[in-house]
Amino acid sequence: MKTALITGAGPGLGASLVRRFRKEGLYVAALARNGARLQELFDGDPGVTCIAGDATEPQTVANAVAQIEKIGPLEVAIANSAGWKIAPLLELEAQDFETLWRAGCLTAFNLARAAGPVMAARGQGTLLFTGSAAQMRAGPGFGAMAVAKTGLRALSQALARELGPKGVHVGHVVIDGPINSARTRAANTNHNRLIDPDGIAAVFHALHLQPRLAWSNEIDVRTFSDWLA
Amino acid sequence: MKTALITGAGPGLGASLVRRFRKEGLYVAALARNGARLQELFDGDPGVTCIAGDATEPQTVANAVAQIEKIGPLEVAIANSAGWKIAPLLELEAQDFETLWRAGCLTAFNLARAAGPVMAARGQGTLLFTGSAAQMRAGPGFGAMAVAKTGLRALSQALARELGPKGVHVGHVVIDGPINSARTRAANTNHNRLIDPDGIAAVFHALHLQPRLAWSNEIDVRTFSDWLA
Amino acid sequence: MKTALITGAGPGLGASLVRRFRKEGLYVAALARNGARLQELFDGDPGVTCIAGDATEPQTVANAVAQIEKIGPLEVAIANSAGWKIAPLLELEAQDFETLWRAGCLTAFNLARAAGPVMAARGQGTLLFTGSAAQMRAGPGFGAMAVAKTGLRALSQALARELGPKGVHVGHVVIDGPINSARTRAANTNHNRLIDPDGIAAVFHALHLQPRLAWSNEIDVRTFSDWLA
Amino acid sequence: MKTALITGAGPGLGASLVRRFRKEGLYVAALARNGARLQELFDGDPGVTCIAGDATEPQTVANAVAQIEKIGPLEVAIANSAGWKIAPLLELEAQDFETLWRAGCLTAFNLARAAGPVMAARGQGTLLFTGSAAQMRAGPGFGAMAVAKTGLRALSQALARELGPKGVHVGHVVIDGPINSARTRAANTNHNRLIDPDGIAAVFHALHLQPRLAWSNEIDVRTFSDWLA
Repeated sequence: MKTALITGAGPGLGASLVRRFRKEGLYVAALARNGARLQELFDGDPGVTCIAGDATEPQTVANAVAQIEKIGPLEVAIANSAGWKIAPLLELEAQDFETLWRAGCLTAFNLARAAGPVMAARGQGTLLFTGSAAQMRAGPGFGAMAVAKTGLRALSQALARELGPKGVHVGHVVIDGPINSARTRAANTNHNRLIDPDGIAAVFHALHLQPRLAWSNEIDVRTFSDWLA
Repeated sequence: MKTALITGAGPGLGASLVRRFRKEGLYVAALARNGARLQELFDGDPGVTCIAGDATEPQTVANAVAQIEKIGPLEVAIANSAGWKIAPLLELEAQDFETLWRAGCLTAFNLARAAGPVMAARGQGTLLFTGSAAQMRAGPGFGAMAVAKTGLRALSQALARELGPKGVHVGHVVIDGPINSARTRAANTNHNRLIDPDGIAAVFHALHLQPRLAWSNEIDVRTFSDWLA
Repeated sequence: MKTALITGAGPGLGASLVRRFRKEGLYVAALARNGARLQELFDGDPGVTCIAGDATEPQTVANAVAQIEKIGPLEVAIANSAGWKIAPLLELEAQDFETLWRAGCLTAFNLARAAGPVMAARGQGTLLFTGSAAQMRAGPGFGAMAVAKTGLRALSQALARELGPKGVHVGHVVIDGPINSARTRAANTNHNRLIDPDGIAAVFHALHLQPRLAWSNEIDVRTFSDWLA
Repeated sequence: MKTALITGAGPGLGASLVRRFRKEGLYVAALARNGARLQELFDGDPGVTCIAGDATEPQTVANAVAQIEKIGPLEVAIANSAGWKIAPLLELEAQDFETLWRAGCLTAFNLARAAGPVMAARGQGTLLFTGSAAQMRAGPGFGAMAVAKTGLRALSQALARELGPKGVHVGHVVIDGPINSARTRAANTNHNRLIDPDGIAAVFHALHLQPRLAWSNEIDVRTFSDWLA
């Protein structure tokens, strides 16, 4: 049975990704810091393993890869972790700045570092990252997240060059706007501006299905009403 | 019956696009300057109308839109035309420089100008452009094509902002490498570097299928062996 | 006596550029369509030749280069021409779309095509273009100008690669905001957002002064109060 | 007496920056990890204070700012620190990946965090970062440095937006090629490809001199023979 590993697999896009790859027949390991919430989300689905852990720790991610590989070959690995803190740069401490980078960028490196060699050895696999256009634009208060997310983008491009020839497909999905959730519905009167998380998960899945003679590295996603503001 | 209009519909990617949208059940108008070649390519398929014409002429494109709309609502319009001339900028005349821009960029404007209002009036439709990363990088001899193709990209982004809220999906597919053909197979020993035109056509079709709460504007395509060189 | 040729040399940045290079001791040919206005601006300065002409015409620009070379070697050529028309793309005709591109991009090609060989033959010279960040961002109504200005940027990069090794310095100055003028002062209450045209001219001049082992191709300019909005 | 603080002030560009701002009459604090080498470089110049320290430590940088402010108002702060390690991403450990980011990006944050408030309180000052185009392009082995340097670029843009309106000029100088040194002269037969460090220092100084109604945020530097490869 083919398997997937998804970090940042909490509610929202994380859960949509888990459900989509389950629906396509993969066994999924869902990794997030809040184990209780993972249990709540996926309890009862025998095709999901919940792993409580911090993806900024290389060993935690390496262990998760080893664990899921016992069930079946790791076909898809998705780095969906991210931090969130809106503040002027001069009001952040160095530790906050670094914590945001670790959450938004180092987690993806850890996943690539653990899953990449396994996939490269088989000459097959898909490694996908969740990016954010809003954060890369670095509007007021988004400076530290911009550093993390532009770093993630550079990581995706460098990994694509390094792993592509080894048969591993690396992709970066750039979310450009708020994702539909109870919180964003409450905060936005125009729900047409809220991106459908299942629609985003479909974009991840479409990248996974691409044949190796026509691979994409980067694709953006937003709603019809909120283009490239 | 839903319809599609594809410019630059000659052999290669153009033909793959025609076939793909035919396969998905659309009636397709194939527009290209060389009418005899169009006939050869699509002769015998009652679901394809061949239109010999020059997409740099606004009236030609407007007529093609009017003609296909008589058969059924225009669902997909693809600007796949392009010029090709590799030369140092100082060896080009102003007329060559402009001709390349007209072929690579004005054709897309003409298609948007003719198909956009029809689609916007129905609040539905997909308008896609064929871009080129190799040309946008402007390596030696590619300067004039870079001007055309970066213009095309800017056009795609501006149209997306303008037409998205009206229900029209605008997308830009950035081809990053040579497309597999008899000519490129002869010129390249490593066929793993040649992008599969049917794979590219699948990317166009996937954009067309996206629901309006998760639309993409830009996606790149290359092979596993030729990443972002 | 060293000479300069500046297109789009009307009031505003054009006049500041003429004055700056005059002040630095160059003899300047000022080219613009409105000859009467040129006379008004520079009348009485024996170091300025006014040339009424349309820089979208290759022969006009070639003649201007030949004319100024009779006075002294052409040291600096600046393409400062641009069109201006704010309108949704679907409300433009193909002819408008092309006219904006010809004004904003073809004029620079014509200047490079006429001045480049002369400079390359001497292994010396500076070729500078006036870009616009606001136009490249392609906000509402700016689509056609975005096509022109992103094309100008691609042209600048391709020319830099082609002419740099021949000793010709190619640069692109990206103006990011409105330039201070009677018109923009009337339209903006916050004059700190209006870029000083003499400050921009200083940036052009600084590029010209760079030694060839430390050349720049692109630099942006805006005021302290209006950063990268 | 006005003062400057320069991190990564070892041999090469660091030393050129120290000398340039000394020549312009500023008192300079040179910060680097190797105190002995600093002494060697600047010994005998009473206008330079050598500070041995690690700019990845926020307190070290804060102390340096406090120390130089006792001598005179901090007018210019330059983050010139960087790490260097060329290796495929899959051969790096998470700790290496983070170390490179800390050296290339966190050091600049630390400098901004310490110098920014002091400058903003006076409504005056220049904060400059040394970027690298070669590293941002993420060629083979440059992935981790690309993450650091694209992060640095995002940081520069976010700080420019945040500090510009407070009178602090933030700039990013993108070095595109090897800098002339004994090591690069030995490694490259074509010395015309080696960027002159004094020429780069002149670019930093030119940014510092800009009036606040015509500020630049980003400028690239390379030699005439090595354009945008």
